[in-house]
Amino acid sequence: MIYFDNAATSQKPQFVIDSLVDYYQNDNANVHRGIYELSERATNAYEQARDKVQNFIHAKKREEVLFTRGTTESLNWLASTYGAENIKQGDEILISYMEHHSNIVPWQQLAQRVGANLKYINLKADGTLDLADAEEKMSDRTKIVSVTHASNVLGVVNPIKELAQMAHQHGAIMIADGAQSAPHMVIDVQDMNVDFFTFSGHKMLGPTGIGVLYGKYDVLNKMNPAQFGGEMIELVDLHEATFQPLPWRFEAGTPNIAGAIGLGAAVDYLTNIGMTEVEAYEQSLVSYALPKIKKIPGVTVYGPQDSEHHSGVIAFNLDSVHAHDLATALDQEGIEVRAGHHCTQPLMRYLGIAATVRVSLYIYNTREEIDHFIDIIGKIKEYFNREFA
Amino acid sequence: MIYFDNAATSQKPQFVIDSLVDYYQNDNANVHRGIYELSERATNAYEQARDKVQNFIHAKKREEVLFTRGTTESLNWLASTYGAENIKQGDEILISYMEHHSNIVPWQQLAQRVGANLKYINLKADGTLDLADAEEKMSDRTKIVSVTHASNVLGVVNPIKELAQMAHQHGAIMIADGAQSAPHMVIDVQDMNVDFFTFSGHKMLGPTGIGVLYGKYDVLNKMNPAQFGGEMIELVDLHEATFQPLPWRFEAGTPNIAGAIGLGAAVDYLTNIGMTEVEAYEQSLVSYALPKIKKIPGVTVYGPQDSEHHSGVIAFNLDSVHAHDLATALDQEGIEVRAGHHCTQPLMRYLGIAATVRVSLYIYNTREEIDHFIDIIGKIKEYFNREFA
Repeated sequence: MIYFDNAATSQKPQFVIDSLVDYYQNDNANVHRGIYELSERATNAYEQARDKVQNFIHAKKREEVLFTRGTTESLNWLASTYGAENIKQGDEILISYMEHHSNIVPWQQLAQRVGANLKYINLKADGTLDLADAEEKMSDRTKIVSVTHASNVLGVVNPIKELAQMAHQHGAIMIADGAQSAPHMVIDVQDMNVDFFTFSGHKMLGPTGIGVLYGKYDVLNKMNPAQFGGEMIELVDLHEATFQPLPWRFEAGTPNIAGAIGLGAAVDYLTNIGMTEVEAYEQSLVSYALPKIKKIPGVTVYGPQDSEHHSGVIAFNLDSVHAHDLATALDQEGIEVRAGHHCTQPLMRYLGIAATVRVSLYIYNTREEIDHFIDIIGKIKEYFNREFA
Repeated sequence: MIYFDNAATSQKPQFVIDSLVDYYQNDNANVHRGIYELSERATNAYEQARDKVQNFIHAKKREEVLFTRGTTESLNWLASTYGAENIKQGDEILISYMEHHSNIVPWQQLAQRVGANLKYINLKADGTLDLADAEEKMSDRTKIVSVTHASNVLGVVNPIKELAQMAHQHGAIMIADGAQSAPHMVIDVQDMNVDFFTFSGHKMLGPTGIGVLYGKYDVLNKMNPAQFGGEMIELVDLHEATFQPLPWRFEAGTPNIAGAIGLGAAVDYLTNIGMTEVEAYEQSLVSYALPKIKKIPGVTVYGPQDSEHHSGVIAFNLDSVHAHDLATALDQEGIEVRAGHHCTQPLMRYLGIAATVRVSLYIYNTREEIDHFIDIIGKIKEYFNREFA
């Protein structure tokens, strides 16, 4: 089986699975609550995972790393906390045409509720972000700029640092959706100077149900908690309550302890390889795959046409075969790719298409798999041409 | 090691751990998205877990079972969706003095925001709920009654069915917090006639990071989603979106797939034993333990004094030893109990105490462990009396 759907979720190394088994078999207890040894071991493991994530994204403080269910929850929390507290009627929220629904709909809902305006940054003909358009659409009414760090369709990596600089000049905050970047490249939230950065564990070799919301300390520290209860609380009176300091203030209830520990193990695994090496290896795969895919007669690749500006996500269509048919035919040959709108319906309409096939690569994929994939595509194409010509 | 902190979290059978490993090794893919076989296997396993939970709590429809991170998130979602949509200035929300912070603070926050009133049902001298007081405090201003099914301190099981009947007579909805009941007894949401029921996987042999919000179909179906993005979406336009039907409308983003599958395995494990048998076994342990604990000179047990009305949670204090010192001393002897306010500060103040020791039992605990615990308590007491007399 060839797994080419890594933008949806990644496979898990035995090292990560073992970390979950080890936790449940040897350290399983609730965290931050017990004064007995087992609970302290669980708490240490959970908090060490936070340190690992801090180092992984080069955050200044461990308190800036909050555990969530995943990118979608992180973005929803931002809309329901920072957004709800700071966005007023007439304010503007700026996103782009290449956003995932999770970075669109929470803002739509907020904008509808308070009477704010949601604006979209255009893309250039090659699928990259139109920075001039971004600049034109930013004004002092802009309060939030939220853009994906790497597209889950176009294989584009966006210039978040430049966008953050523009946003800050207008007094807006900058949010980067790192769901498709954190698994694949060196992340330095301080260098990008983002106010918030979000990503998911399950796309970077980690377990499901765990993700991260990074926030700058001074911004996070002023925000209300997204959820209430359990150990995020300091004192509860009958009619009011006070809350713990960061980061625990944002982690209501028993957290996904095993999930955080598993994410920590995934971070260890990736760090051990080195994120520069991860990026270089994936780049070498793209440089190998993209020209071969483009050479297939009748193929349209969306996004940049040169592999140098292309991440490991390659979306394309074959003019003679519907995306879903192609994915189904590939599945029958043991090759798992995605077909559909990839949770980016506004982008699909922007591109004037309904769906694409998407190949998304990760560290365990190989050139041999790409060769086999190209061979099979050729055979499928022949079959469809013969049968439905 | 003797683990007596099951009200905080339970240990996991190998059967449940194996289900996680099996998923990650053999079926790992994202759900509801892929048209390839692996993704279909993952989707089937995830949705089968929902069916298992439906049967476990005797829900009428599978669409009534929503996966959340746990009880705390379930209750927060209720406050931020049903609560925010239905509670207006002057309305009343009725809870009790024995609630966990997770069933207090979300309602406090909502009440503060809209100018509603939060009221508390009194307890009787034996720690059970004062139903007459509940009746007195309900009126047509009451919109939500939210009470724990089983106390995490007093070992009380509340008459949710009677409360639901009262609530419905006043046009209010009934929420039961089942965090401490679902792991330990037969749950029948239809018989109780609750509108919502919440519980956590990790307290019932399942993984961390997964829980359930049950809601009656007609109530749930009118509610707005709590979070937005990913596969909960049907269509996304630039400025508005439509959403999937229940249950997926409430499951934004990649869910905790492995967590749900693990919870399904825990449900299988418990169902295999039989929840009537689980309850009977725990009852036999309490009948054994409670009289022995009460016989210790200087012990005060909180809640009902007869084991017949007592769940497997036993909170007590020794008049000569602080709760935390006792728990620490027990830990040194390999016995893990909880000491503190158990996230129930209003209850602690109601009882006029700062903290208790808490023993909480589950299916793998034994009479031999209880005997050993009683012996060790005797020795610790002697030691403290000698050293600090």
